[in-house]
Order: sequence, then structure tokens, then C-alpha cells
Amino acid sequence: MLKATIYFMLYLIGLGFDEKDITLKGIEAGKKCEKCYAELYTSDWKGDIKNIEKLIGKEIKILERSDLEENLDIWINEIKDYNTALFVPGDPLVATTHIAIVDQALRKGIKVKIIHAPSIISAIASCGLQIYKFGKTATIPWSGQVENVAKTIEFNKQHGLHTLLLLDIGMSGEQGLKILLSKNIITEDTDIIVASNLGRENEKILFCKAKEIKNFPSPCVIIIPGKLHFAEKEFLELLRCGNDRKRA
Amino acid sequence: MLKATIYFMLYLIGLGFDEKDITLKGIEAGKKCEKCYAELYTSDWKGDIKNIEKLIGKEIKILERSDLEENLDIWINEIKDYNTALFVPGDPLVATTHIAIVDQALRKGIKVKIIHAPSIISAIASCGLQIYKFGKTATIPWSGQVENVAKTIEFNKQHGLHTLLLLDIGMSGEQGLKILLSKNIITEDTDIIVASNLGRENEKILFCKAKEIKNFPSPCVIIIPGKLHFAEKEFLELLRCGNDRKRA
Repeated sequence: MLKATIYFMLYLIGLGFDEKDITLKGIEAGKKCEKCYAELYTSDWKGDIKNIEKLIGKEIKILERSDLEENLDIWINEIKDYNTALFVPGDPLVATTHIAIVDQALRKGIKVKIIHAPSIISAIASCGLQIYKFGKTATIPWSGQVENVAKTIEFNKQHGLHTLLLLDIGMSGEQGLKILLSKNIITEDTDIIVASNLGRENEKILFCKAKEIKNFPSPCVIIIPGKLHFAEKEFLELLRCGNDRKRA
Repeated sequence: MLKATIYFMLYLIGLGFDEKDITLKGIEAGKKCEKCYAELYTSDWKGDIKNIEKLIGKEIKILERSDLEENLDIWINEIKDYNTALFVPGDPLVATTHIAIVDQALRKGIKVKIIHAPSIISAIASCGLQIYKFGKTATIPWSGQVENVAKTIEFNKQHGLHTLLLLDIGMSGEQGLKILLSKNIITEDTDIIVASNLGRENEKILFCKAKEIKNFPSPCVIIIPGKLHFAEKEFLELLRCGNDRKRA
């Protein structure tokens, strides 16, 4: 007698920055699934999940951090006999906590497919800095524990590399800078790039001195440029505070 | 008399890895434009542009490298009085050559909007390595001039960082490795990750020794892991050559 093994599929589907950043692949995968979930705690996603529900024609259950971390086993058991979609902000697995979900699913014999979407990691190319000249990335946490951030910036700077600083959930550009300034990691005259709502309708990118920024709400990133190529320098001047040849 | 300034918009629209990686934003922007172009020379895009034409209901003219590099002025003049879409593989501006297009457009008073899409830069998170532990990226060129690649790998390794190696257009994993081996940058026993067709139907990711890889066609990337966190190590073992608990 032949014994067939049936594999169910878990799709991790990227949502990008807001509800219109989902790809055709993402919509198609969502339509195939019997169970649909979303987590919106790893990033500040600006969209209405109801619109994603309309696109795939199904209800989506919102999961909390505890469902996917402390109680991951329970969730994996819940989905193991179904094709399942888990919608996540940005590009899945960039939030490193999701690796554990994939790992557990594979160990239970569930196949996993990643459906990619826009991510801050490549979208920062919008600032005009060459993506391959970025060094290690760091996150400014609400705790204000920035020893690691200081080390990363210094190390990258020493080697001419740009540093992408992600800000903790809900942290504005001003709040992030205040932490860096209070720890003397940068001065008020340090040239930085601030990008708020990258990839969204209300995107705002500015090249300026730290003291010049105001009104850069969350989600926001700060970039400390390393050694600038002349093409990078020229482009950054277009984003310079006060220059009116601004991007749309 | 009031004088109104009309700004036309140039949309750089990311196509991701193939024809189903376009986002809803990308389709919407394409529909708004009077002129539509695509360039497919900066990356090995796996799709049929005819399907993108169907989605936006318009013809798309394919541009060559010379149109957008040597003759950029001519093209900018052609589009300056229209809303224009330029479709590009991956996430726009990750191909650093496109910065010049944005720069020129802004200087001519054309507004520019970037529509993001999946990119190899974040999709490599699929390999289970933490994205913020990647150092500088390098490209293996067909010329075999790999001094910069060697330096980048050594530097990243010294500091425990992972190295993403992009391969020149059309280069297979085997061909890329052959170059690294012939220059003694790695040995046959070096542990590497190879990822072919990342984000596409025929995606293939393997963690193995350099000598074990075969049949990793273009588009392909190679990753030289730095210091591994135990979670990274555990996950990579699932992708290990010979392990049958593979990803879908």
C-alpha cells in the first residue's frame, strides 16, 4: 500500500509599510489558505487589516506577541493541519523573532514559504546612499541602553560605512536623537539623515544637522553617513534642510 | 495674476523578483502614468513585462542601459511634461546607478516617487541569518577582479559579521564559487550559504561546504556566515545539505 504524506504550508506574507504594499504573490497566497493570522507588534504598520481581509476574502485573526513567542507550540498545533497565512509587517524574517516560527513549523513537518514585501532595509536606498556601503545596523531602544549603538556607529564610521539606526516602536526622530545626544554619541552639529514614514504617502526625508530636525514622527529611522562618494554627497544636498528642490 | 507651477511625477516602481512581486501601490502608480518604461538590465528579473502591461492597461517601452546612462538627458527631456512610470527590477535605487536618474529629474523640476518592492537585500533573511549582523556587501564580477570581495569578506569575518555576495548578471553559484576558490578567498571546506532564485517559485537555499554545491543557477547569491548565534546555527542546520526537513 502506498502511503502519501500530505504537507501543509505556512505562508509568511510580508505587508510592507501599509495596506497597499502587499504584492500579487501575497494576495494569491492569502486566498489559498484556510487559516489567516496577522501579527502587528514587530513594527509600526500603517494600514487597516480589514482591507487585507477584503483582498483575500477571508477573516484575519490578529495575534499577540505572547501567541507567537511564549505560546508558539500551541499556535503551531492549531495550524498544523491547514494551509495557513501569517501576515507580518515589512519583509518577513527581517524581524528576527520570526525565525523561531519557521524553525518550529519545519520541525513539525509543515512546509514554509516566505512571500517577500518592501522592507526598510532596502527602502533606505531612497536617501541616496549606496546600499552596499552600509555597515552593521543597530536599534535605539526605549530603555536608553545604547552602548551597542555607540559601538556600531563608531565602528562603521572608522571604516567609512553608513549606519542605519532603527528606532524602537513608537519612537519619533526627535526622541531617538535626544537619546543619542544625551549619551554624547553625536553632537548637535552632526550631519544626519532622518526618514519618517519611508515608502508611505507622507514620507519625509531630510539631510541636516541633528539640531535642525523637528516633526519626524514614528515610524522613523536615522542614518549616520560614513564616507560619502561624490554622487552620494550631491544627492544628499538635494535633501538638505532648506533646499526646495525636494522629493515629492 | 497667480502663476501655478505644475509638477509632473516620475514614479520609480519596483518589480521585485518576478511579475507577481509588484505591489498594489506599483500597479496604482502605473495606471496613473501617461508614459511607461522599464529597464531590465540591472538585474535578472524573471517575468514577462506583457503581464505588467496587462495589469496597468498600458504599453511599456523597454529601455537599454545606454538610454538611462549615456543618454539620460534625452530621456529626461522626453518625460519632463508627463507623469511617467519607470519599472525596475527589485527595489528601486538598490541599483545605485538609478540615483543619477532621480538626481537629474529633481534638477529639472520633476518630482520623484519611489514605489518599493521586494529586494534581495532583505529577502536574504530567508536564510535564517539575522539581518542586522550583515556587514558590507560585495559583488563578484565577471572580470574576476575580486580584491575588493576578498577584503570585504576578511573584514566582516574579523568582526563576526556575515557577508552577502551578489553575483554579476547571469553568473551561477558554481561560477561565483569557482572565482572565490581560484583566488583562495575560500577553500572547498568553507561553510557557505547559496541561494538561487530567492523569492521565486523555484527558490533553492542550501547550507553546505563549497565543494558540495551544484546546480545553483542565476540569479544566485552566496553568503559567507560570520559568527553564528545559536538560533542561526540551529536554523542553518535545517538547510544543511542532506537534511530532508527542507523548506518548501
